[in-house]
Amino acid sequence: MEQRLSVVTLGVADLARSRDFYARLGWKPVFENEGVVFYQAGGLVVALFPGLAVDAGVEAEGRGPGLLALAHNVRTREEVDAVMAEAEAAGARIAKPAAEAFWGGRTGYFADPDGHLWEIAWNPAWPIDDEGRVRFASS
Amino acid sequence: MEQRLSVVTLGVADLARSRDFYARLGWKPVFENEGVVFYQAGGLVVALFPGLAVDAGVEAEGRGPGLLALAHNVRTREEVDAVMAEAEAAGARIAKPAAEAFWGGRTGYFADPDGHLWEIAWNPAWPIDDEGRVRFASS
Repeated sequence: MEQRLSVVTLGVADLARSRDFYARLGWKPVFENEGVVFYQAGGLVVALFPGLAVDAGVEAEGRGPGLLALAHNVRTREEVDAVMAEAEAAGARIAKPAAEAFWGGRTGYFADPDGHLWEIAWNPAWPIDDEGRVRFASS
Repeated sequence: MEQRLSVVTLGVADLARSRDFYARLGWKPVFENEGVVFYQAGGLVVALFPGLAVDAGVEAEGRGPGLLALAHNVRTREEVDAVMAEAEAAGARIAKPAAEAFWGGRTGYFADPDGHLWEIAWNPAWPIDDEGRVRFASS
């Protein structure tokens, strides 16, 4: 697993409320629809996403405020499974096994020893540059 | 508030356990002592920090797994107070008002509408480049 982050996904209860809050701080989305808002923040993407608990397979855990996932994007579909296996071997709890995503990629989630969620994702629409930075790109 | 992240701080219960977990994933610290571990991850720093709940002023909230703070570093001491005021005006809850930090900088924490913690920090020892990227630098 390379030492980098691609996306920070903030679980939110009310997408409009959160979008408006970040707008008041001066943040401008690079993309938004009724289900998600993306911001380009330097070499990574910040997302507001009401569906995070379900997507990450932690809906039943009843997590408190601040549910969040750190995404590590990989360059090939196969790497998703490889990194998930590496994480499991390292002692991670698999929250959601790697699977095809409705948006055309492949993704899985694991939790580190303190429950911090990592999403390992292959998103063919979002290029990763030589320095490991991701850019939002619409598919 | 500029649209970028500087540090992702993972609250951990057992620093050695977490450090060993990330070591098994291949992550190499750029700095570590008995109280914190830092990794350089592209243009930001990832930290493992057992003291996060106290530092962020949320110790009494009894947060569940996954306590984490996103830090936004600024270039001057004065900007810490300015961004904290901007966040409060935008509707943020101030978790910990801006104050001098023992390590020589200035820092405050606010919570967004879902309780996601943001640290606004001025760290004179960590340079911010023209693209907003931070590099770990020992003081």
